[in-house]
Amino acid sequence: MKKIGVVLSGCGVRDGSEIHEAVFTLLAIDQCGAEAICMAPDIECNETNHLTMQETGATRNVLVESARIARGNIRNIREVRAKDLDALIFPGGFGAAKNLCDFASKGAAASVDSQVARLLREMVLANKPIGAICIAPVLVAALLGKDLAPTITIGNDAGTAAEIEKAGACHQECAVTGFVVDRANKFVSTPAYMLATRISEVHEGIDKCVREVLALA
Amino acid sequence: MKKIGVVLSGCGVRDGSEIHEAVFTLLAIDQCGAEAICMAPDIECNETNHLTMQETGATRNVLVESARIARGNIRNIREVRAKDLDALIFPGGFGAAKNLCDFASKGAAASVDSQVARLLREMVLANKPIGAICIAPVLVAALLGKDLAPTITIGNDAGTAAEIEKAGACHQECAVTGFVVDRANKFVSTPAYMLATRISEVHEGIDKCVREVLALA
Repeated sequence: MKKIGVVLSGCGVRDGSEIHEAVFTLLAIDQCGAEAICMAPDIECNETNHLTMQETGATRNVLVESARIARGNIRNIREVRAKDLDALIFPGGFGAAKNLCDFASKGAAASVDSQVARLLREMVLANKPIGAICIAPVLVAALLGKDLAPTITIGNDAGTAAEIEKAGACHQECAVTGFVVDRANKFVSTPAYMLATRISEVHEGIDKCVREVLALA
Repeated sequence: MKKIGVVLSGCGVRDGSEIHEAVFTLLAIDQCGAEAICMAPDIECNETNHLTMQETGATRNVLVESARIARGNIRNIREVRAKDLDALIFPGGFGAAKNLCDFASKGAAASVDSQVARLLREMVLANKPIGAICIAPVLVAALLGKDLAPTITIGNDAGTAAEIEKAGACHQECAVTGFVVDRANKFVSTPAYMLATRISEVHEGIDKCVREVLALA
């Protein structure tokens, strides 16, 4: 049974993993007969009240909150190595751009969480596929843009696409229920809530994205 | 477009709505071409750390945390009337048995949150269908067991089934990917994580349950 790492960044679209995207990632992995290995970094993040969409001034722990999506079955990313996995997938949500890296504030000049960067580099060296959903492809661009010039999509947001290109990656526009695959680099991405107006569109794009990642694994 | 109320109870299996169940409920509603109306009571609940599965001693607000699953598109249940809805669905998670009622501590003698009880009674009077997933059918049993003797399922847990019967409802065993329908009362229930060992089983049972609720609406 293939083991697919899923890197979570909290629990909630504005300060963590987008919940629908994370759940559809786990569903597609299971429907393909593979095993999801959920993980997150043990770091603090700024809490957003999702009723008011305002930051509260408090912090929450990314690993502890991510455990809600994983029903407690989660590992500290520090303990996970590329040899434990056949592929690695990043659901979206602002947490991918605020907690796993600082793209949300720094754009193309973003730096990536040290353990996320370490595991991503290990996966590339091992020639194992990487999936990135919604805003999460910016992580790949920020870390690997200059070295690999990967082709990725975040849908069609011009500002974000410009930062991705500035980081050295190639942005390709994509419909919400489609995906972009860079076969040389084994990167697969899909826009999800960067474009979706309906939850069923998110499900369809992520289902295709995950199946493509598994086909490359 | 049919409007389907979805009553959330927080965000996390141990102190709120089971996240996968809630998301699959929203997905099935959208795939059926209906609109989900998310709602939750504005009450406090005891917070559980989902990494350690221990209560922390802190509280969280059920409406604010439920907003994470609903991406902010949520209403205070106090503002929702049966006339606004074509059906009402309760995802599971301990929140359904700890926050929406106190079945988790009181069993058959449980009392139900006043606004949840008010809306449930309005739906019954209006002859509109009600879906309940995982542990959530205990709510229906606690509130309406004596009056309507509804037939419901929570899978096959003998202790919970005994409390349901004590409350005046009829428990029927059910497989994880099946559902139980009480056509006279328009109640539909499915076991989900009361039995599931895989997320894809949860998806299958909830998809069938939601489609049956919509067929009755």
